Amino acid sequence: MFIYIAGSGAMGCRFGYQLFKAGNKVVLLDKWEDHIKAIKEKGLTIVGDKEDNVKIPIMHPEEAKEPADLIILFTKAMQLPAMLQDIEQVIGENTKVLCLLNGLGHEDVIKQYIPEKNILMGVTVWTAGLQGPGVAILKATGSVNLQSIDPAGEAEAEKIVEVLNEAGLNVTYDKDVVPSIWRKACVNGTMNSTCALEDCTIGEFFASEDALKVVHTIIHEFVEVGRATGVKLDEEAITEYIMHTAEVAAEHYPSMHQDLVQNHRQTEIDYINGAVARKGDELGVPTPYCHMITELIHAKEHVLGIR
Amino acid sequence: MFIYIAGSGAMGCRFGYQLFKAGNKVVLLDKWEDHIKAIKEKGLTIVGDKEDNVKIPIMHPEEAKEPADLIILFTKAMQLPAMLQDIEQVIGENTKVLCLLNGLGHEDVIKQYIPEKNILMGVTVWTAGLQGPGVAILKATGSVNLQSIDPAGEAEAEKIVEVLNEAGLNVTYDKDVVPSIWRKACVNGTMNSTCALEDCTIGEFFASEDALKVVHTIIHEFVEVGRATGVKLDEEAITEYIMHTAEVAAEHYPSMHQDLVQNHRQTEIDYINGAVARKGDELGVPTPYCHMITELIHAKEHVLGIR
Repeated sequence: MFIYIAGSGAMGCRFGYQLFKAGNKVVLLDKWEDHIKAIKEKGLTIVGDKEDNVKIPIMHPEEAKEPADLIILFTKAMQLPAMLQDIEQVIGENTKVLCLLNGLGHEDVIKQYIPEKNILMGVTVWTAGLQGPGVAILKATGSVNLQSIDPAGEAEAEKIVEVLNEAGLNVTYDKDVVPSIWRKACVNGTMNSTCALEDCTIGEFFASEDALKVVHTIIHEFVEVGRATGVKLDEEAITEYIMHTAEVAAEHYPSMHQDLVQNHRQTEIDYINGAVARKGDELGVPTPYCHMITELIHAKEHVLGIR
Repeated sequence: MFIYIAGSGAMGCRFGYQLFKAGNKVVLLDKWEDHIKAIKEKGLTIVGDKEDNVKIPIMHPEEAKEPADLIILFTKAMQLPAMLQDIEQVIGENTKVLCLLNGLGHEDVIKQYIPEKNILMGVTVWTAGLQGPGVAILKATGSVNLQSIDPAGEAEAEKIVEVLNEAGLNVTYDKDVVPSIWRKACVNGTMNSTCALEDCTIGEFFASEDALKVVHTIIHEFVEVGRATGVKLDEEAITEYIMHTAEVAAEHYPSMHQDLVQNHRQTEIDYINGAVARKGDELGVPTPYCHMITELIHAKEHVLGIR
């Protein structure tokens, strides 16, 4: 299968690498010059659970010419519209587009560029890191749940599932993937924004009663807004899942901490707590905690001169 | 007049110094050993707008024996009950007690120790700093508004006003000081907690639209809760006052930033945003922003290991 990875950071490299090793024709797309240069000159280097190096093509999105069978979207949330514009020329009538971005609201963006029958929405708990340009750190295992947003697309989506599973990506076709997307957004909405603001690990934040009040209130806002949009969400189950995730990931700084505190980059807050705040406003569901933490993160971006 | 300064940090030193220079018998009370030692050995040193050194007595609160005419309370909010217990033996039947602490809710604490007719509540915009133990930095000028909480105490309070004015403290007897106390608490509630959390100056925080949304929402919560308790508050006037103060003090880190970020000390959040959140809960007034910022500050205290 011919596959573009649209956005080839850590996660894009993981998926691109595994699909390439499984025998697919894979092209990485990205705009980070040092990363492109490193992979063009030295190949993509894999460290972590195993060591490897593969000669895999990488180019700027607008340089891609050949229509793809599959495009996997792995950009930062705010780069999604630009990416979809840049790759317009390789989106054929039957090109499936799989979105595995964190956060909420991406479906509405993608629909502006791709016919519904070709859109697959998904969620993954795979992780990955970058040691530097051209070097991906791949540890542990994960899984993917995905769904064709047009039920008529299910049979073709199952073929994509098969290709991804041949690459060991542990993919399940999920007849109702939206609750999982909301659940993961809620994991991010309780950990990423808070740990970025407080400059701490997940375990450090989750250790106090006061922090847990924040966590529970944010979960409640996500669940109320999700339900108001018609998504089936079980607040108790999501709370248990988040508490379990916080224990497992206690030592980690979430990605928004890496963005804001470590690298002084703009955050994806508008697609996590900010998305719930906006949707809550539309639907008349109060979301003061999502509003306030979004404002505080943006204010901090401003203090750091990155907004 | 015989005056104890109960809590002799920066502001206590300023008031103690000015009252001492005006010819009153003044005793500083504090528990900070290095500060006590420095003042006992080398006197209280004044730097800033003028340089001076005065031999002024200082001791532990529980060492004070002689009943006072006036006690000025200048502790940190959370130290107030302990201070009132420690100085019980010097509170005579006619000892006036003036509270100039930041924050809200102190009156209820003081009433447990002092008869209402002797309680004066006040607010000050004087400032001061400490260069180190025994050295106070006094710059610029300020003023004090105060009121006897028992109207029958007005005549005696006027005598206190006179003594303080002889020391150049610019004091006004205010027949309704409570709105000013709330206004100052609202200044603190919009600047202290936010700048502590975001690790920035007042000017850096107030520079973004997102931060101003937080500021306006917090002001609104203070005003709604204050009004529900019967205090006359003008939201527009308070907003103007806060915006003006933020401009004048743009370069400054508020005291809560000094406590939390610079010195890793517990904050007074429970007496500022936290007090409004609690009072709002009692009265059925929603205060989600005051709740959330209180929880986030406490969570950060926990992350820093100071709670």
